[in-house]
Amino acid sequence: MRIGSSIVFNKPRSIWSFASIAGQKEGQGPMKQYFDEIENDPSFGQKNWEKAESTLQSRTLQLAIEKGNLQPFDIDCIVAGDLINQCTGSSFAVRDTKIPFLGVYGACSTMAESLLVAGLLVDGGYSNKSAAVTSSHFSTAERQFRFPLSYGGQRTPTAQWTCTASGAVVLAAEGGAPFVVGGCIGKIVDLGVTDATNMGAAMSPAAADTIMRYLQDTQTQPEDYDAIVTGDLGNIGSELLIDLLLKQGIDISNNHYDCGSMMFDDEKQDTHAGGSGCGCSASILCGYYLPKLQKNQYQKILFAATGALLSAMSSQQGESIPGICHLAELRSQEGIAC
Amino acid sequence: MRIGSSIVFNKPRSIWSFASIAGQKEGQGPMKQYFDEIENDPSFGQKNWEKAESTLQSRTLQLAIEKGNLQPFDIDCIVAGDLINQCTGSSFAVRDTKIPFLGVYGACSTMAESLLVAGLLVDGGYSNKSAAVTSSHFSTAERQFRFPLSYGGQRTPTAQWTCTASGAVVLAAEGGAPFVVGGCIGKIVDLGVTDATNMGAAMSPAAADTIMRYLQDTQTQPEDYDAIVTGDLGNIGSELLIDLLLKQGIDISNNHYDCGSMMFDDEKQDTHAGGSGCGCSASILCGYYLPKLQKNQYQKILFAATGALLSAMSSQQGESIPGICHLAELRSQEGIAC
Repeated sequence: MRIGSSIVFNKPRSIWSFASIAGQKEGQGPMKQYFDEIENDPSFGQKNWEKAESTLQSRTLQLAIEKGNLQPFDIDCIVAGDLINQCTGSSFAVRDTKIPFLGVYGACSTMAESLLVAGLLVDGGYSNKSAAVTSSHFSTAERQFRFPLSYGGQRTPTAQWTCTASGAVVLAAEGGAPFVVGGCIGKIVDLGVTDATNMGAAMSPAAADTIMRYLQDTQTQPEDYDAIVTGDLGNIGSELLIDLLLKQGIDISNNHYDCGSMMFDDEKQDTHAGGSGCGCSASILCGYYLPKLQKNQYQKILFAATGALLSAMSSQQGESIPGICHLAELRSQEGIAC
Repeated sequence: MRIGSSIVFNKPRSIWSFASIAGQKEGQGPMKQYFDEIENDPSFGQKNWEKAESTLQSRTLQLAIEKGNLQPFDIDCIVAGDLINQCTGSSFAVRDTKIPFLGVYGACSTMAESLLVAGLLVDGGYSNKSAAVTSSHFSTAERQFRFPLSYGGQRTPTAQWTCTASGAVVLAAEGGAPFVVGGCIGKIVDLGVTDATNMGAAMSPAAADTIMRYLQDTQTQPEDYDAIVTGDLGNIGSELLIDLLLKQGIDISNNHYDCGSMMFDDEKQDTHAGGSGCGCSASILCGYYLPKLQKNQYQKILFAATGALLSAMSSQQGESIPGICHLAELRSQEGIAC
């Protein structure tokens, strides 16, 4: 069903199983106890960074399938994406699975996008179980978007650190907690920010737009949710988001959390404005928030993943940064009131 | 509904309107009379190729909206993709529309993927009207995947020519002909082809897999369709596809057509093995096949768009080329028997 510009599923759909794997640096931060696995080898046993990221994503998907006591053939479709050119991180990750595959691209918003598309498949009755997966890797992102690692470039104070991490979810037509109940597809908002080392600023207007539309469409208030989770605005983008919404009379300051700000101890770990990469919000969703919903410690959260739809070339050509934010609402119980 | 690994919509969904725009070389080929517009300026009035492609895609989308007597706000969601790194061709094309946006990536299979995802939105009741759009541009693809244009690299006999073209479709819950009735999400098939100048060979096994699954799931035969249209296997991949299916006892040789082979007069236009690029099959779908269905000259066709999920870097790293093929079934009438 459609309400305004938001999507409400015919019934809450089960997050049957989920998994998260993080890299060494992420495994030394404040979230370390929550990930299923921490891999200290940044190359994941492979001979280049791109194969490393595909291995990370493939292992995370396999782990989610295993944790759900499933076999690959139980999954009707994998919806996956990543940040690497032509989304090869995902193509090579799922290549050997023999499972139908939809590639999606939403930059760091990809986990919410893939959750929504998997939700359309399951809620619409086209699939019994579908998976949503994303990953990012510090070293694939650095050399693609910024500088070769060996160059040792200085990072600006507003820069975020691309996480080596992945999250995978198996969505099912029937099953136990937690549940996805619907969400909101993002619009591109571009207020003209051209600084590719300040992506939080570029993405926060899109986050404000999507959160506002969803609250309006569902006639809910920020306090109806245990947490409004963005990812990854980082420290600067998070402040901007709170300000932007306050100007519209919406106060999320009491229950807003950002995966980019949660991932690292920015001072000790020298990560500046926080974490980023589509594996950041995916791994914190699957490592931290979904277990809390499963244990009924949280009842309702909004997962609003944000993406900066730039490329190295669009920045070099002087283009501003289009931001987007896709949102999924997650709950601990099927029958909970709106 | 799901049958086997295929999708059957709850009811045939209307292709409310559609549009195609092609570049100069494409506008000199055998398909020239079918496109809505031919643009002889390869830069589309912009100062670089990437902006040119975004302008092409944006104009094609606008034209589809106009031809449907619609306004942008009538469209609930745009599902779009292209071949440029981080799919910026699409992000910048839809940036100013203020319409919710799902970015997808399936290389040259993207038009079928975006049609299917838009179909999930409309058929599932989450959207009244959604658009599916893709584009490609010879000059953005050459410099990204192959060589700078000014290098003047020699092309191999098996190489295909990336088309400067775009196609856009508006899908609606209710409306007139033609109709989408369902389809099949592709699996990655990779038989180990590593020659990035012979993508037809790399993609044909994926096309065979998807077409075979769909025929099996729907219990239909090749002769039940007026045309089984692939895009873009080119001349070499097309022959391989026919051979691969013949080995499985399926003969599509009488009604198989490939958009890559249709686009150019390969001998006169020096395009070697045919056209490619996700704008190739999109523009031929919207320029040639949809009008034929609308006029009831064709009753049923399969649109099976194929993609090579490689990047310049994956080839440089010695990886083989994962192929994929997504399929949509299109009809001239709502009530036609399966």
